[in-house]
Amino acid sequence: MQSREQPGWSPEPVAPGPDLHDVPMSWFNIVPNLPAPLPPARDPEDAKGSRLEVQQRIRLDAMRAQDAATDSFLPIPERVRQELAGLGRPTPLLRARALEEYLDTPARIYLKREDVLPTGSFKLNSAVTQAYFAAQQGVGTLVTETGAGQWGHAVAWAARRFGLHAIVFWAGVSARQKPGRHTVIEMLGAQVHQSPSELTAPGKALLRDGRHVLGSLGTAIGEAISYAADHPETRYISGSNLPHVLAHQTVIGQEVKTQLDALGETPDTLIACVGGGSNLGGLMGPFLADKAERGDGLLLLGAESAAAPRLTRGEWRYDHADPEGVTPLTKSYTLGRDYELPDTHVGGLRQHSGSSVVGVLRQQGLLDAVAYEEGEAFDTGRLVLRTEGMLIAPESCHAVRAAIEQAVRARETGAAKTIVACVSGNGALDLDGYTARFGGRAAHA
Amino acid sequence: MQSREQPGWSPEPVAPGPDLHDVPMSWFNIVPNLPAPLPPARDPEDAKGSRLEVQQRIRLDAMRAQDAATDSFLPIPERVRQELAGLGRPTPLLRARALEEYLDTPARIYLKREDVLPTGSFKLNSAVTQAYFAAQQGVGTLVTETGAGQWGHAVAWAARRFGLHAIVFWAGVSARQKPGRHTVIEMLGAQVHQSPSELTAPGKALLRDGRHVLGSLGTAIGEAISYAADHPETRYISGSNLPHVLAHQTVIGQEVKTQLDALGETPDTLIACVGGGSNLGGLMGPFLADKAERGDGLLLLGAESAAAPRLTRGEWRYDHADPEGVTPLTKSYTLGRDYELPDTHVGGLRQHSGSSVVGVLRQQGLLDAVAYEEGEAFDTGRLVLRTEGMLIAPESCHAVRAAIEQAVRARETGAAKTIVACVSGNGALDLDGYTARFGGRAAHA
Ligand SMILES: Cc1ncc(COP(=O)(O)O)c(C=O)c1O
Ligand SMILES: Cc1ncc(COP(=O)(O)O)c(C=O)c1O
Repeated sequence: MQSREQPGWSPEPVAPGPDLHDVPMSWFNIVPNLPAPLPPARDPEDAKGSRLEVQQRIRLDAMRAQDAATDSFLPIPERVRQELAGLGRPTPLLRARALEEYLDTPARIYLKREDVLPTGSFKLNSAVTQAYFAAQQGVGTLVTETGAGQWGHAVAWAARRFGLHAIVFWAGVSARQKPGRHTVIEMLGAQVHQSPSELTAPGKALLRDGRHVLGSLGTAIGEAISYAADHPETRYISGSNLPHVLAHQTVIGQEVKTQLDALGETPDTLIACVGGGSNLGGLMGPFLADKAERGDGLLLLGAESAAAPRLTRGEWRYDHADPEGVTPLTKSYTLGRDYELPDTHVGGLRQHSGSSVVGVLRQQGLLDAVAYEEGEAFDTGRLVLRTEGMLIAPESCHAVRAAIEQAVRARETGAAKTIVACVSGNGALDLDGYTARFGGRAAHA
Repeated sequence: MQSREQPGWSPEPVAPGPDLHDVPMSWFNIVPNLPAPLPPARDPEDAKGSRLEVQQRIRLDAMRAQDAATDSFLPIPERVRQELAGLGRPTPLLRARALEEYLDTPARIYLKREDVLPTGSFKLNSAVTQAYFAAQQGVGTLVTETGAGQWGHAVAWAARRFGLHAIVFWAGVSARQKPGRHTVIEMLGAQVHQSPSELTAPGKALLRDGRHVLGSLGTAIGEAISYAADHPETRYISGSNLPHVLAHQTVIGQEVKTQLDALGETPDTLIACVGGGSNLGGLMGPFLADKAERGDGLLLLGAESAAAPRLTRGEWRYDHADPEGVTPLTKSYTLGRDYELPDTHVGGLRQHSGSSVVGVLRQQGLLDAVAYEEGEAFDTGRLVLRTEGMLIAPESCHAVRAAIEQAVRARETGAAKTIVACVSGNGALDLDGYTARFGGRAAHA
């Protein structure tokens, strides 16, 4: 088994490649297809220097270019398409018959199975893409943040795949809930830091003042950016929120379109959970033209955590995405950067603000939203386990919960709705959350 | 969300059914296709009563009939085919390109992805089948044993799917290694007992004498049988070893045949890990005619645990499958029922004896075998994680290890071999084993 540890990076397709026939040729670019212009990020009026300039420095060239692109379709490089195919794309669209039977609903519930991707979530779609562009740019180290850990896990794999090093700031409370995912990320060779940490100025400030000490996606974002700014040989990448990440995830929606077409189905409802909005954007972006045409005939529904109810209870205004204000100001639905997020097992939806793209969809009345308590999410997860057999991520449970409510409504009205929900991730490495809720008494509920 | 907890049992297909086009019509029955007759099970000459008679009483009718069948093909009931399709069959056959690149081998390595089944392993194929037949027979409670816990997990789901109750005796040492899988099995509503337990006569005897106190698949088998014999309203089912279980798993090999055909590939090597032999039989059974024709041109290779090296170091003779002699005598490669299995994280391959069917294949020179240490298996698992991205079960790591060795040999000889290994299960719920090996220092290896 002597061999080189990593295949050398090569922009060339690996020959002979897998069958790319079913992998989309392009990403769909949502921004130029929004019904209103995207509010631009801007600098606050303080003396701490330009955040926008920092972003210019720490971002990958290709990602900045994608965010600025005005084309509706962005070609996917051949090598990225090969990687996506090798990782198992297209992912299955499962008709959840056992769940339907249980609900006794005339609705048809389809689950888009991003959970079967090897690292366990849809995050891999963008991670492999960004690692590709980083390698192409000659960058050696990627710095990022992660909430639930799924993005960190995906980046750890993708970085290794392209011969890069990865440094991950992980929302502390989530990291401590998931020792198993920690093992996996480290097995992949990435360096993990719990946020807030003593490694960066914003982390130190939070620890010193006793603010946000549980950590959150926001604290981790602030630290990752600060770390990258202090280490010019690195580049910082995001796992959600920004136009380019949403674009990378549109392979999901494009596949769903093709898969539904093959079944002769037209969706009545599309549902995704919402953290930074990338699985939502990825699922729904390719259906925006249908939404424009069909209006209320196509329901787009975002399911968020009641612990971070931005779309249902936040304000549409400019805010920083991190508590210390390391990020530029962006307009989104926000609870305010001082909002201390509670200790929950739903790390992927646990943030005080969100995506401008998702915000515009909501603001313009295209996107409905609903929020669920953690317990409701885990109960849904148990029901999915009991009916369909798989253990899904607590984040994804929010989307399926919303699908179930829609299906129950369909039972009441007798309408044979076609409902599609994105199962954004697998829950096996989030099992401690399930154990906390059901452990010991699971059998007796 | 008020609804009935389980869909009522119905032998009728659920309408409208999923697409069954790609699901095999029949199971392949290996026994009549063996090159030598299967040595029959028999009773020992002692005063403890007929074990064979107990088996007659506690087994499902359909399973006894299948074990006695002489047809080469056993039709799969429509409802079972629907369940298999709903669970995601056919499972993918992944060309492990990243692993090949890493090994720099001309060989093509294909991994049969049983790990993507919802409960995480191939065991579901037989669990859902046996639960179907139990429901059809009007049985209310299934009793079984499990080693790694994958079979118990699959039975827990399948039992619930058909409205049955499940009682699972789980090899104690494995159960204690996997609190997460314990949670899941309980969330599914099954009753779990660590073996040896105080619930049964053989369990009590072992505990009293301080023998086999770690537990093993064998202790759990003895207890499950004893429990079923004491509770006439229950039926006992097996997750491996017997002809009917191997037959249920031949959907694997039949799919692989079709999938390889579609790729224009002819396999040179088929590899599976071996516990009771059901994923091995399931993969290789449908290729027995090819083996007869091609001889050494087709290598069939079983990968076992060095902690239970039956095929490489055991004796081909009659033995009980459990330490207390509750089971009939069956002929297989055995280490002897007094052999105390060490504490390893490879619960699914941790047994002192094996399958008569696999034994005949080995005896007749059709099956090669190799044994690996636990550490070699986990190292292989880390390599699969790093290259292909997924975390596979420690049992499956044995098969992939053997595939890698074959691929390295192909590199040395320059032969572009086609190698197929069965990834029998997912490793996310076995993570503690990985953590034990890599935790804390995973990044620095
Ligand atoms: C499984 C899973 N689903 C969903 C999300 C939310 O991300 P997004 O809103 O970008 O889709 C996360 C984020 O960590 C996640 O891990
Ligand atoms: C993942 C996995 N693979 C393989 C096995 C071995 O079973 P068999 O030899 O019947 O294929 C087991 C048994 O528990 C298992 O859990």
